[in-house]
Amino acid sequence: MLPAFETALLSRFADARPAALMEACRYPLRTGGKRIRPLLAFAAAQACGDRRAALGAAVAVELLHTYSLVHDDLPCMDDDDERRGRPTVHKVYNEGVAVLVGDALLTEAFAVLAARAGNRAAQRAQLVGELAAAGGAGGMIAGQAYDIGMDGPILDVDRLRVLHRAKTGALIRAAVRMGAIAAGAPAGRLTALTRYAEEVGLAFQVHDDVLDADQDAGRGDGGPPSFVKLLGVDGARTAALTHMEAALAALQPLSRTSPERSAVAPLAAIAIFTVERVA
Amino acid sequence: MLPAFETALLSRFADARPAALMEACRYPLRTGGKRIRPLLAFAAAQACGDRRAALGAAVAVELLHTYSLVHDDLPCMDDDDERRGRPTVHKVYNEGVAVLVGDALLTEAFAVLAARAGNRAAQRAQLVGELAAAGGAGGMIAGQAYDIGMDGPILDVDRLRVLHRAKTGALIRAAVRMGAIAAGAPAGRLTALTRYAEEVGLAFQVHDDVLDADQDAGRGDGGPPSFVKLLGVDGARTAALTHMEAALAALQPLSRTSPERSAVAPLAAIAIFTVERVA
Repeated sequence: MLPAFETALLSRFADARPAALMEACRYPLRTGGKRIRPLLAFAAAQACGDRRAALGAAVAVELLHTYSLVHDDLPCMDDDDERRGRPTVHKVYNEGVAVLVGDALLTEAFAVLAARAGNRAAQRAQLVGELAAAGGAGGMIAGQAYDIGMDGPILDVDRLRVLHRAKTGALIRAAVRMGAIAAGAPAGRLTALTRYAEEVGLAFQVHDDVLDADQDAGRGDGGPPSFVKLLGVDGARTAALTHMEAALAALQPLSRTSPERSAVAPLAAIAIFTVERVA
Repeated sequence: MLPAFETALLSRFADARPAALMEACRYPLRTGGKRIRPLLAFAAAQACGDRRAALGAAVAVELLHTYSLVHDDLPCMDDDDERRGRPTVHKVYNEGVAVLVGDALLTEAFAVLAARAGNRAAQRAQLVGELAAAGGAGGMIAGQAYDIGMDGPILDVDRLRVLHRAKTGALIRAAVRMGAIAAGAPAGRLTALTRYAEEVGLAFQVHDDVLDADQDAGRGDGGPPSFVKLLGVDGARTAALTHMEAALAALQPLSRTSPERSAVAPLAAIAIFTVERVA
């Protein structure tokens, strides 16, 4: 679907040594995930008139997302043996290699942003700042910390929203903002797109919980806190739709003319997809 | 010794949430290590006429170095319970927290470089590129991969040098280069300082092996490959001195006048310290 993106992503770790490490680093990148974050980066850049400007941001965001999955799957974290039907990195290799692979993917995300010749230096530094803030202890890693109980149990919807704004929302927000920044978005447009991204992030997560609940039906309670447990299935479905509609509303000021509407159409389509997907 | 540096370093992770994660992130930064990489960054900047310009680079390099220790100490890597006489992060907290803390320190290193207001944007992007290259799969992580045997056993001095150029040398080189770049070093000066850094890195590592061999005396063979095992203690001592002298020689073209000599004096002192230290 995004051949230039897939080529750019898999060209990382292509010809350095040791070969076994490079092979291990490419393994989790070849999983055929939804690539939702790169799609958001490209769609945001398109809404700002320059879709191609997002290539570096898209690759960096996907590298950072993939590292988070590799570390999250470790036995000392979620302890998952499979991801998308394939054995996880620590099962194919071992835990030490999985730690190194995650570290390498994370570091490479910043190397991509620093090197991307298409962006001006001021933009490159800004993109690094956006990604580091979203991926760091004030963003995604805080979310992981909430998730492993470092701030006590999650017993209400407000705290669950805080968890997910950090754990998945921050990087989705960064994907949109980085695409827009790379395309040279003015401040007002960036603000509107940021609001869009925050709503899409919550719609995405609430709908994920609905899908998980459908899968888990009959397995009873237990497991991590979820919007379905706190709101019920119908309540969660409604919440997902409400966030999706708020995301579309945030795009309104950017779609007053017909050419504007086609420029933001991919963003609108992704918002709708987040609550209609079945996997 | 470097109060502005220590303050800047420990001000990271000061006031975000969750508090337990922030506390865990600060724990490995408060160990009172030798701070050799920050010292090198400041000394290189001083040799280029602006010592203070290195503050951001020094903090970023130490954050990246500290993350590498936290992950290296994990049970699935070197499995160390203590570092500098204190329990390691995964012993104080647990393995999951130690993975997150390392990830957070690594990400924060890039946040520091992106935000450092003292440097121009072009410099900030260049500093990010230097640190990502040194810390990534082509640098420090390749060294870790060699170390855990991902490229087969290390049986000769040339391959051991390749391992250490990657594992410790790349970040020492980056510390020097980043200090010089932050201070606006012209290309010729940067080349000379890079040669200095590469020799200091090897002197540092060979001398480390000598110190380890002294400690291990009588414990027989086994353990990781080392310069002492491959060259003997006297051979390793001589090699460390040779690298130290090559480092000093690289400074010669930068120390033709008396003011120049005092500007590079800290770099010379560090080179000598690397082979005279007893711990």
